[in-house]
Amino acid sequence: MVTTIGVQTTGQGLVEFTPQVQAAVAEARVTEGLCTVMIQHTSASLTIQENADPSARHDLEGWLSRLVPEDDPHFTHTHEGADDMPSHIKAALTSTTLSIPIARGHLALGTWQGIYVWEHRRRGSTRTCVIHIGS
Amino acid sequence: MVTTIGVQTTGQGLVEFTPQVQAAVAEARVTEGLCTVMIQHTSASLTIQENADPSARHDLEGWLSRLVPEDDPHFTHTHEGADDMPSHIKAALTSTTLSIPIARGHLALGTWQGIYVWEHRRRGSTRTCVIHIGS
Amino acid sequence: MVTTIGVQTTGQGLVEFTPQVQAAVAEARVTEGLCTVMIQHTSASLTIQENADPSARHDLEGWLSRLVPEDDPHFTHTHEGADDMPSHIKAALTSTTLSIPIARGHLALGTWQGIYVWEHRRRGSTRTCVIHIGS
Repeated sequence: MVTTIGVQTTGQGLVEFTPQVQAAVAEARVTEGLCTVMIQHTSASLTIQENADPSARHDLEGWLSRLVPEDDPHFTHTHEGADDMPSHIKAALTSTTLSIPIARGHLALGTWQGIYVWEHRRRGSTRTCVIHIGS
Repeated sequence: MVTTIGVQTTGQGLVEFTPQVQAAVAEARVTEGLCTVMIQHTSASLTIQENADPSARHDLEGWLSRLVPEDDPHFTHTHEGADDMPSHIKAALTSTTLSIPIARGHLALGTWQGIYVWEHRRRGSTRTCVIHIGS
Repeated sequence: MVTTIGVQTTGQGLVEFTPQVQAAVAEARVTEGLCTVMIQHTSASLTIQENADPSARHDLEGWLSRLVPEDDPHFTHTHEGADDMPSHIKAALTSTTLSIPIARGHLALGTWQGIYVWEHRRRGSTRTCVIHIGS
């Protein structure tokens, strides 16, 4: 089964969408299998991170933005805005695809793990994720 | 087939567990297929790296720990210890899931490739990896 | 179906091979499924990036090479050349495996996404990628 999910972002940072992915797994009625998520963008990415304490996501976003600052004088790909080239770099350093085993009808995530879209552009938008569920 | 493997770590660094993953592939009796590994933690991660010369793993660990030092004054997520927030960042920069094709009953890894748990906490523990094997 | 593709590189940088992966998908006659790509090397890696403007790839390569410079005095794994240890680090920071859903017989990539081998050694070579296509 292949389906798509739209995830609304509101600016740089992590947006959890584990419930939407789990709903797709439930709809596919797969008890044991594999769920793959791919984001169809190169200026946003995916990550599995702690979903307990929001301060971890805040620090992740801050650290990565300090590692890849805007207005690097070496950048030549600048015509789409100062936040565009850093977005591509941040996407390359994190993940575009994730594959999560399914057990007993549920994503076999650890207790504190959630699936996130990581928006790297200053302006949020609807990010499309393609989901494949197989057995 | 979905199964779990526990990998014992003893502190920061890479621990190879290719033989345990290959044993799961053998047990599943899949001659051609796909083996997916996911680590159920956000302060340890997965990587496929060179398994010939230990100095490469030593340098990987050292470089990443210099990139993401403890005691960054920007960190707010500090209540679980000075090594906790760097662990989440290191996990985000490396991999939480890996998918390896299976050919002729074996993981189709390159000659020098091994599958590793990368422990990012100072104190080691047993890290749980979920394995899905499909055809 | 498991097959291999050789991708010729000519030095550090990104080489697109989306058409070769799509050709394998077409040959497998899978209309809905999952395509996994794994590179059998630890000094080159995979990434999904923008395939519209070459300046984005140029800046990606430049940024990563500034992040991981050669001749780091901390490196001990140096006997395979000054570009070897940086190559392993760059591979660990990017991707060794990617899984892309297939819909209507095609890789379900976003409009501007392409699949790339990212060569990290100064000297190019033929890099082997293993492809698994399942339903």
